[in-house]
Amino acid sequence: MTAPAELVEYRPEEGADPSTLVYVFGGNEPVRQIRPGTVLRTWSEDCFAGRVRSSSDLSSEVCDPRFLNPQTGPFYVDGAEPGDTLAVHFVNLEPSRDWGVSTTVPFFGALTSTPTTATLQAALPELTWRYDLDRAAREVIFRARESDHSVVFPLDPMHGTVGVAPALGEVRSSLTPGPWGGNMDTPEMRAGATCYLGVNVHGALFSLGDGHARQGEGEACGVAVECAMDTVAIVDLIKGQPCPWPRIETDDFLMTTGSTKPLEDAFRIATTEMVGWVAAETGLSTMDAYQVVSQGVQTPIANVCDSVYTVVSKMPKRFLPGVDAYGGRHADLRRQAAALQLG
Amino acid sequence: MTAPAELVEYRPEEGADPSTLVYVFGGNEPVRQIRPGTVLRTWSEDCFAGRVRSSSDLSSEVCDPRFLNPQTGPFYVDGAEPGDTLAVHFVNLEPSRDWGVSTTVPFFGALTSTPTTATLQAALPELTWRYDLDRAAREVIFRARESDHSVVFPLDPMHGTVGVAPALGEVRSSLTPGPWGGNMDTPEMRAGATCYLGVNVHGALFSLGDGHARQGEGEACGVAVECAMDTVAIVDLIKGQPCPWPRIETDDFLMTTGSTKPLEDAFRIATTEMVGWVAAETGLSTMDAYQVVSQGVQTPIANVCDSVYTVVSKMPKRFLPGVDAYGGRHADLRRQAAALQLG
Amino acid sequence: MTAPAELVEYRPEEGADPSTLVYVFGGNEPVRQIRPGTVLRTWSEDCFAGRVRSSSDLSSEVCDPRFLNPQTGPFYVDGAEPGDTLAVHFVNLEPSRDWGVSTTVPFFGALTSTPTTATLQAALPELTWRYDLDRAAREVIFRARESDHSVVFPLDPMHGTVGVAPALGEVRSSLTPGPWGGNMDTPEMRAGATCYLGVNVHGALFSLGDGHARQGEGEACGVAVECAMDTVAIVDLIKGQPCPWPRIETDDFLMTTGSTKPLEDAFRIATTEMVGWVAAETGLSTMDAYQVVSQGVQTPIANVCDSVYTVVSKMPKRFLPGVDAYGGRHADLRRQAAALQLG
Amino acid sequence: MTAPAELVEYRPEEGADPSTLVYVFGGNEPVRQIRPGTVLRTWSEDCFAGRVRSSSDLSSEVCDPRFLNPQTGPFYVDGAEPGDTLAVHFVNLEPSRDWGVSTTVPFFGALTSTPTTATLQAALPELTWRYDLDRAAREVIFRARESDHSVVFPLDPMHGTVGVAPALGEVRSSLTPGPWGGNMDTPEMRAGATCYLGVNVHGALFSLGDGHARQGEGEACGVAVECAMDTVAIVDLIKGQPCPWPRIETDDFLMTTGSTKPLEDAFRIATTEMVGWVAAETGLSTMDAYQVVSQGVQTPIANVCDSVYTVVSKMPKRFLPGVDAYGGRHADLRRQAAALQLG
Repeated sequence: MTAPAELVEYRPEEGADPSTLVYVFGGNEPVRQIRPGTVLRTWSEDCFAGRVRSSSDLSSEVCDPRFLNPQTGPFYVDGAEPGDTLAVHFVNLEPSRDWGVSTTVPFFGALTSTPTTATLQAALPELTWRYDLDRAAREVIFRARESDHSVVFPLDPMHGTVGVAPALGEVRSSLTPGPWGGNMDTPEMRAGATCYLGVNVHGALFSLGDGHARQGEGEACGVAVECAMDTVAIVDLIKGQPCPWPRIETDDFLMTTGSTKPLEDAFRIATTEMVGWVAAETGLSTMDAYQVVSQGVQTPIANVCDSVYTVVSKMPKRFLPGVDAYGGRHADLRRQAAALQLG
Repeated sequence: MTAPAELVEYRPEEGADPSTLVYVFGGNEPVRQIRPGTVLRTWSEDCFAGRVRSSSDLSSEVCDPRFLNPQTGPFYVDGAEPGDTLAVHFVNLEPSRDWGVSTTVPFFGALTSTPTTATLQAALPELTWRYDLDRAAREVIFRARESDHSVVFPLDPMHGTVGVAPALGEVRSSLTPGPWGGNMDTPEMRAGATCYLGVNVHGALFSLGDGHARQGEGEACGVAVECAMDTVAIVDLIKGQPCPWPRIETDDFLMTTGSTKPLEDAFRIATTEMVGWVAAETGLSTMDAYQVVSQGVQTPIANVCDSVYTVVSKMPKRFLPGVDAYGGRHADLRRQAAALQLG
Repeated sequence: MTAPAELVEYRPEEGADPSTLVYVFGGNEPVRQIRPGTVLRTWSEDCFAGRVRSSSDLSSEVCDPRFLNPQTGPFYVDGAEPGDTLAVHFVNLEPSRDWGVSTTVPFFGALTSTPTTATLQAALPELTWRYDLDRAAREVIFRARESDHSVVFPLDPMHGTVGVAPALGEVRSSLTPGPWGGNMDTPEMRAGATCYLGVNVHGALFSLGDGHARQGEGEACGVAVECAMDTVAIVDLIKGQPCPWPRIETDDFLMTTGSTKPLEDAFRIATTEMVGWVAAETGLSTMDAYQVVSQGVQTPIANVCDSVYTVVSKMPKRFLPGVDAYGGRHADLRRQAAALQLG
Repeated sequence: MTAPAELVEYRPEEGADPSTLVYVFGGNEPVRQIRPGTVLRTWSEDCFAGRVRSSSDLSSEVCDPRFLNPQTGPFYVDGAEPGDTLAVHFVNLEPSRDWGVSTTVPFFGALTSTPTTATLQAALPELTWRYDLDRAAREVIFRARESDHSVVFPLDPMHGTVGVAPALGEVRSSLTPGPWGGNMDTPEMRAGATCYLGVNVHGALFSLGDGHARQGEGEACGVAVECAMDTVAIVDLIKGQPCPWPRIETDDFLMTTGSTKPLEDAFRIATTEMVGWVAAETGLSTMDAYQVVSQGVQTPIANVCDSVYTVVSKMPKRFLPGVDAYGGRHADLRRQAAALQLG
């Protein structure tokens, strides 16, 4: 079903000048051409292009606003055409350094006014938190700035940004999510998940970045525990099946996403997509599928901080017995991943 | 801290004329006066006032639109004053019949236009699904209307509507949620949870209703698996502490809620409430608490179908070691509940 | 068509204790019972219950938050039943004092975070501006607080709040607008206009208040040039015709309103109402009426500061030749108004 | 201040294949290089690329969805750099044919669900209306499809889409508005107005299109009276002054715009921009300017149908005596325009 696994390694140079990296989906020449089924070993710099390294680094001082959220890619996938779907299976995600950072950024985040939710109020203080990442213990350690207090969170690596070139000839900033994927910022984008992305241009032009050591749902302050990431993914192709909005599959869930404002519309997109998917897979009528989804689904918020917001609709597979989405592609990729010798 | 447990039983007459029930928060005489710490055994009719009983019953035909979502209450709580907080601990919820119903209702729900998200399109079909509730097996059984397909969901009883009289002399329909609680429609309102509600009037005037055998997050079609419910709750009082928006505590989570439109504002309310709560309980500064919440929280959507929408912010207690909200009231109520001889 | 004009004068006592006034729609006993067609001469206190009188008065200090936006009424209209429409024709509005005030209120207004668009930012400064109202010159004079600058605006008196008792047994704060009218805050509610309000309870229970010497569209800072107002209105009744959302008619325009959040939904309500009204009056199909409205209408924003927001849809009557809404009731009321000997 | 007027004429070939036209802002080579102060005589095809010509043409059948809303341009303006502002003064707009068309498009418009306000409902009927444009009488004539009814509207030509290349390396579809201008769809973009656009890339890369013979505010059905347009504009440059969101100036008004969702945020953008502009021009403090704007401004809705929505804030210049925005550039351009020998 998939091409024989070929290994491609692509690592942007660590410490390179931020202006040499890629900050958009679409509009760039591919860095590599790969075949469907390729095992891609790659690395991505953190969202600050590596410039925020300590609690005294402020992103507004050390970063160039034109160079935020660098992406690794784009990768040209042989045979990918508009109307196909890319299936990106995340085999492994591992922070590549023993630290991560989070910050507040003036007029960015859910609990502040922003350039679009514009008010006349002053910005919140700009602060940086440096987290220790204990990869052996699988821990992310928060230390308070203004008191003597720490919190130990579980390490839960994920990619905030995964996508392909958009439709209609658009080129979109890596700071925004949409039908092409992009900056969805959902913690569901972790190892073990397969992300489905509809192809809009020849070769799909897949990129990824924005590693998070972990993230709360909603990404309230706008910034997760940001980190450079070592990533292994299998990049596969499903021919002849479109995918209007990004989907995610795990062993336990089918997931759909929607990204727009207001947030209820992101919910509406994700939920109509789920109703349609469940109907297609089960043979249920649209109204019956609407009913099943209404009683069975989980709907965590992914982000309320990016230029548009993202909601995930998660349907437990146990409520969909016998369903084998995309001909069992996720299970197939899981098997391929298990067979890989990583390390 | 709480008064000695007194048992009060109040059961509206099953099969009573819907017009004799209560459909608002505020503005009604109490049905009972109870002391803080009372164990309340009660029963609530389903949201259709018991009129939708089979898949051929359409709510638009068998229900009077003035009499939807009846509440049981209000209960006057001795000593409750504006500025206090009611703590309602749900000991047990059990559907009182072996069936439940869900429906689509014209121009009601998340995936249809509505009287406020008004369009010129025709309504979706009006349909009713009757579910079998297998209380022994703890199962909720869906049967498709338009094909031969069934789904077995776990029974997960909850109250969609729990609240007190609103502030500012308002009387609000039981169909809407807000700072007084009301129709929040979150599956978190299940047995084992303690719901905190800010008191706005003398006696608080607590009511509850809208039993659901289960509900998906978001309540997409607008109607859960609706059922009459037998409920045991301990109604307690926390003096001198206001609670601007409803909160929920379980053994594992502190939760805040926000209800408004657009949905991002419901998220903003719930999240600022959580930041404030975490800061107050841990001594963290607001900015440090904002950071901890941003990395640690879960934010499921409760409903996107009622007159305004609800988001829940859930903070795992394991990220808040040593925190003992309201002086350990929830743990205390759990112990009292465990000591009760139910049945 | 209307009952013979009877004159009723009702004036709440100026300087009365704010707690003796009315702050809700619904839930209060009528102050007067009037017949349809009555000429009502009345007076309303300003939204601060008269407590903010100089630039050194801060509403947060001199006002009780439970007693904001007092209404004059309610008036019981004989024969008004659910399903009827009240037609309130504004004959004359005149500020009753030679000054008005505007303020900023912490966390209230369009360009600040609020309790629902909640952020962690500090409030804007609280300030009061006192305006001179030159009723002879028909001028409203602004004087800057923080520089030597003044602006002369035209006097354009209007009522921010006009409404009846809500449906479903609700009682709603005078601070919020909705299908019952209430705090719509549109400058279109001026002398010469007829406001149509759907009746929800016996007697309609009409009230009005919140006089503005003038107001910009959107009421950005949340507070217009607030003033006590002398008002003459003819309160008429249209039997057997419901009015789901408030409408306004002038010599030149048919207007519909919608009040909700997000603001696009307020637009959708007002515009679907206008499409329906145009179709009903012209015999056009819904789709043809949608087309005519799309090319002909004006849609000013009324308020983006109240608990929900209001949009007005204005259709020039010259695009609707031959249309005679409600059997020419507005023109009839204009004639009656012209015949009155005011002063 | 401006360069001596040079005349440049650029006319895309009428009847050209739609695929040869331009459908994005940014990302295309300029069609002409012009000097600041150039008088540009140009022509733009209608939003359907000229393919919808009669009431039996359906856009879904005769148009390629990749080729909607063609733009004329881009024009490279000598000396325009990021941080500058382009001033485009519209001297004359005239429909170039004696007909225009409007349509409904499935799942497009304010009174239908859309791909983002997604529901499960069926689409509204797809219909086309052909309007006669009587340019001598300055009339736009509507004829009903489903009854014998006509409406005569005034001709009021405008450009729905005017913009420059976006920031951050983005390329944006001509169907969407934003900080770069684009598909704002405001009737204020008519002859006599000067549009200010912030420059994001060398040469600005200005384009325009989407002529409307007239349009109602809000563009409810999503489609105005679309027409090919002959346009004369003076394209001028203001060095060293940025313009974060498009502004418009006429003899009587200063206007700001905001484009985003939800619509209240578009209002917030436009209004904060106006407060800032008024403060800068008058020397008023921000809070005083907030007050003046709150009492003086008009806020018509531009569109509630595009991918994001647009609000205009209009401040009457008579409330801003002595203000001379951009050193009187608009008045200067008016004089230049008056001196032109058109025809």
